[in-house]
Amino acid sequence: MNSLKELISTGKNIAVISHISPDGDSLGSILALGITLGKMNSNVTIYLNDVLPAKYEFLPEVHRFIMFKEEETKEYDLTFVLDCGDIDRLGKSKVIANRTKTLVNIDHHISNTSYGNINILDVDASSTCQMIYEFIDEVLEAQISLDVATCLYVGITTDTGNFKYDNTSPKTHRIASKLLELGVNIEEVTFNLYQNGSYNSIKFLGDFLQNLDITLDGKLALSTITLEMLRKYNLDSDETDSIINYGRDIKGVEVAITLKEVNENIIKASFRSKANVDVNKLAQIFGGGGHKKASGATIEGSMDYVKERIIEEVSKTIGATRG
Amino acid sequence: MNSLKELISTGKNIAVISHISPDGDSLGSILALGITLGKMNSNVTIYLNDVLPAKYEFLPEVHRFIMFKEEETKEYDLTFVLDCGDIDRLGKSKVIANRTKTLVNIDHHISNTSYGNINILDVDASSTCQMIYEFIDEVLEAQISLDVATCLYVGITTDTGNFKYDNTSPKTHRIASKLLELGVNIEEVTFNLYQNGSYNSIKFLGDFLQNLDITLDGKLALSTITLEMLRKYNLDSDETDSIINYGRDIKGVEVAITLKEVNENIIKASFRSKANVDVNKLAQIFGGGGHKKASGATIEGSMDYVKERIIEEVSKTIGATRG
Repeated sequence: MNSLKELISTGKNIAVISHISPDGDSLGSILALGITLGKMNSNVTIYLNDVLPAKYEFLPEVHRFIMFKEEETKEYDLTFVLDCGDIDRLGKSKVIANRTKTLVNIDHHISNTSYGNINILDVDASSTCQMIYEFIDEVLEAQISLDVATCLYVGITTDTGNFKYDNTSPKTHRIASKLLELGVNIEEVTFNLYQNGSYNSIKFLGDFLQNLDITLDGKLALSTITLEMLRKYNLDSDETDSIINYGRDIKGVEVAITLKEVNENIIKASFRSKANVDVNKLAQIFGGGGHKKASGATIEGSMDYVKERIIEEVSKTIGATRG
Repeated sequence: MNSLKELISTGKNIAVISHISPDGDSLGSILALGITLGKMNSNVTIYLNDVLPAKYEFLPEVHRFIMFKEEETKEYDLTFVLDCGDIDRLGKSKVIANRTKTLVNIDHHISNTSYGNINILDVDASSTCQMIYEFIDEVLEAQISLDVATCLYVGITTDTGNFKYDNTSPKTHRIASKLLELGVNIEEVTFNLYQNGSYNSIKFLGDFLQNLDITLDGKLALSTITLEMLRKYNLDSDETDSIINYGRDIKGVEVAITLKEVNENIIKASFRSKANVDVNKLAQIFGGGGHKKASGATIEGSMDYVKERIIEEVSKTIGATRG
């Protein structure tokens, strides 16, 4: 990959981008790579499509994130697309990929469509941040600064559910160990990611759990988030993202689904499974997709209608009847 | 420590014990060490004082746990006390320590009183399981079997809050990496520890959160668990143990306290802090103790009385007034 290193040091405009609805792994990976490339070339821009979720504002050097604007017309010598299985998930910044001489696609999603000129894919990696650690260390042969280490740790810990999911490998822990050796402040990371939620979000969680239903012989946990609930607790939509895990983590539950009202006739469905049910297939029935154990779809219709349709399809899939 | 290895291979009765109210680290460590010693000497017994919490029933070789009975009068050549800061926390099995020629105390609690004939203490270790990994590997120079690795992983992950707490060090991740290399099934561990709670415990959590209060300028999160709540949701007392974290993890909260009714006039108070407040000192005011960030006390009085007393003392400690 010597030519890639050459491109990095000589490129006129270099972009580092990732998917819409940013999460710890997309933000951590583009920031870590962007900071590192920025030391090799001053023409590196790290773009965001969406507002940075509040809990990631503590990331080091967040001022480096630039909000992408559609009116921008620059041409790029080199663009890195990170953590993005499908080029359409780039949202507005997809146009950057179309105005780039060389597109480097680095990702760990099994669904990745190899859309780059260079594709570095590893479905066994816990996270894109884990891959970026190796990319910086082995391909770029660059130093990993404390700031970069912190970004990478955030991506690894969030994408593995704190080293709980089975994408966690010996290598994941080995890299985490090295990142802590570089001085990552685990107390600060934990505080910002997990110990700084609003009082309202806790009250909301209480309300949500009291209304969570179990059906289909206890195999389906179904819960809803209405616009009224979001308004009542004054929450941003992204503050409710991890809430679906509570349903999945109940004994006997095979599939957990949360239906969130986006507006009166649009429902965003999130699907989770913990055993053998392939929720990617379930989401596809409703025009969505994702992973085997985590997927999503956006469905038109009233909450009641969508609920009925979902129960019907899950019932067929897992072969259980309404209890 | 050659004499210790000699004692292990020649000892007539060897006991491996830990504290009452067993947790992942105490159970994981005594089982891991007990299994390993059992291969070197057939006279090894691993004792429990209390019923094994249901979520730990998946641990390998759980049949090796023997419930300690007070009428037992054996003498021991060698006893290992693990994860136990204070000999009184051994409960009924404390008598074993008194009938032992050599007592080996292996622990990571800062409060450990060095009560053994041999004391192996490491306050920088995340968990006793982390220490037992090194003890088996370096002192006993024995193989770590897959069963032993699983026990050790369970102790490390539970005592670090899944590698989230600041007791997590580079070494913690390095050892976790080696345990996964030995074949620990992370999907099985995660399922049993975190994804197999009862529907009732989720409903209870919803109720609990809806009733959680914030006071003292938002710095104290105070919550209560009454006997009526435990009855209503048909829960064992240990199913509510980690619930206090929800209060601690709210923005602005410095101290979280949960008051649990043990019976009508006995309240068990759990204290947590996430920043600089020393809750060990707070618990000591009420005759309890523990760590700086996690402690407990058992207090006589009605729920209302105890609540008032607690708010009074916390108010003095953190210098805030009732809002």
